[in-house]
Amino acid sequence: MPVPTDIVPLGTASAIPAHGRHLSACVLRREGRALLFDCGEGTQYQLRRAGLRRSRIEAVFITHLHGDHLFGLPGLLTSFALLGRTAPLTIVGPTDLAEVLHMLPGLRRDWLPFAVHHVGLEEGFEHAVVYETDDFTVEARPLAHRVFTAGFRFETKPRPGRVDAERARALGLTGPQIGALVRGETVTAGAGRVVEPAEIQGPARPGVAFAYCLDTAPCDGARKLAEGADLVLHDATFGEELRDRAEETGHATARQAAEVARAAGAKRLLLTHFSARYETPEPLVAEARRVFENTDAAREVETYRLRPDD
Amino acid sequence: MPVPTDIVPLGTASAIPAHGRHLSACVLRREGRALLFDCGEGTQYQLRRAGLRRSRIEAVFITHLHGDHLFGLPGLLTSFALLGRTAPLTIVGPTDLAEVLHMLPGLRRDWLPFAVHHVGLEEGFEHAVVYETDDFTVEARPLAHRVFTAGFRFETKPRPGRVDAERARALGLTGPQIGALVRGETVTAGAGRVVEPAEIQGPARPGVAFAYCLDTAPCDGARKLAEGADLVLHDATFGEELRDRAEETGHATARQAAEVARAAGAKRLLLTHFSARYETPEPLVAEARRVFENTDAAREVETYRLRPDD
Repeated sequence: MPVPTDIVPLGTASAIPAHGRHLSACVLRREGRALLFDCGEGTQYQLRRAGLRRSRIEAVFITHLHGDHLFGLPGLLTSFALLGRTAPLTIVGPTDLAEVLHMLPGLRRDWLPFAVHHVGLEEGFEHAVVYETDDFTVEARPLAHRVFTAGFRFETKPRPGRVDAERARALGLTGPQIGALVRGETVTAGAGRVVEPAEIQGPARPGVAFAYCLDTAPCDGARKLAEGADLVLHDATFGEELRDRAEETGHATARQAAEVARAAGAKRLLLTHFSARYETPEPLVAEARRVFENTDAAREVETYRLRPDD
Repeated sequence: MPVPTDIVPLGTASAIPAHGRHLSACVLRREGRALLFDCGEGTQYQLRRAGLRRSRIEAVFITHLHGDHLFGLPGLLTSFALLGRTAPLTIVGPTDLAEVLHMLPGLRRDWLPFAVHHVGLEEGFEHAVVYETDDFTVEARPLAHRVFTAGFRFETKPRPGRVDAERARALGLTGPQIGALVRGETVTAGAGRVVEPAEIQGPARPGVAFAYCLDTAPCDGARKLAEGADLVLHDATFGEELRDRAEETGHATARQAAEVARAAGAKRLLLTHFSARYETPEPLVAEARRVFENTDAAREVETYRLRPDD
């Protein structure tokens, strides 16, 4: 049975809240588990607005130490504590993040009633698996911003190929033999015929993948994170008319975001991190669609299924 | 001409946002100037929601270093910077606040493009004028909370008494002579008659006063801040059924807030800082009104004129 995986963008503004947009944060949900990517000021309000249970969040991934991606974290941790959380929390982000958090009142006195496991990333890293469960991994790669920044890719583990039941029957395989083949073993069928797994099972089916690429100018890291992804959330702070400004500030234009998605063979692109100068992201979407048709502007508190047929 | 002074509560929740309530913050406006009392997470969003211009804020008063009164400040300072603020900003609060702010990314690198003047308060202080203009003062007194906490009183300077124009005419006073009397001088009228200011001028009229008393159990500091105030905003985290819990945690019940307002001879009381266990503050208002009739629950983003006839 496929298990649906959803993302819910919580904030799509860059730097300053404007036009009803909030600061960067995005939740990913799968089977009652939740991961949080970035945690701008107001994230705990937005989680409530989206009807998401804060307690479900098991890991937080912070891309970089700019306030608009970070200043909601102290309040979220405090709320976890006040709500009696005991489950451990993983926080992935730049190593300096730990120092920042420890200086905050409340947090510096080690009173949090749950363990915080900090996975630190440092300038110069190239690739790291920063979170892993039986079911999925999250990997990180460096992005191209003004300060050290990491992007993330969530991916479920590949599912075994489909078993061709008719073919298995024709070979006279028993249930236990089919099980062994699915586990990758070779079996001998009734007539002494040696059967390999590939004879009854299709190729492994790829996992579902989501790439979180902000803040960044177009770069290899973003392209690799987005490789074949079902959904890419990408920095689109500016339009092409401000390409110079995007370059100066380490951001992407909508067109550049679309070029990343196209080069990566991604299936769908959501733009985010819109400059306050854009009252609506419509012109940015139009610009991106000329390069990559399956593009939309991320809408806050809306649910996006990574693979619509899941 | 009287000048109106308004307050706009921006957050009335304690500890955790709940039931649509936000974390503590309150703006005071007078003649295009604005002061901010506390700065819980989301304050910059609430300022926008209330249609208040962030750039007008000239001073921020932080009562204590609990996150729900503080975690909106880094984002607000960052937004000031991004919006190109150059006007200096005064921040009044516990001395340790400076250390906390300097540790935050962005803020610690001294890149704020405006001067921050930090007025530090420390355990053991009894009374201090922490901010003063030609027109008003803000004074601080210690409150009774779990950690070092200061409450604040805004008060405009007394206005000179009204001049009795008829009496001045009867004494044969000239315009310049009246001016001298209003400045407190003694003059000699036409007939050699020595005239004192009190002969033509009523008593000085008291300024308008607002007391900000949270977080706190009932205490002398709160009563002194609230003395004769036009409006008192007071901690009413719990109802009397949780009086023990209020005492343990350094908060007031609604009834205790009302007792402070009554003892202080205040004119009006607004309750705030409601525990998440109260879906609405109505029972708290009912409880307080049995002691002090002119009580309401502070409503977020609503404007309250300190002296309704101003």
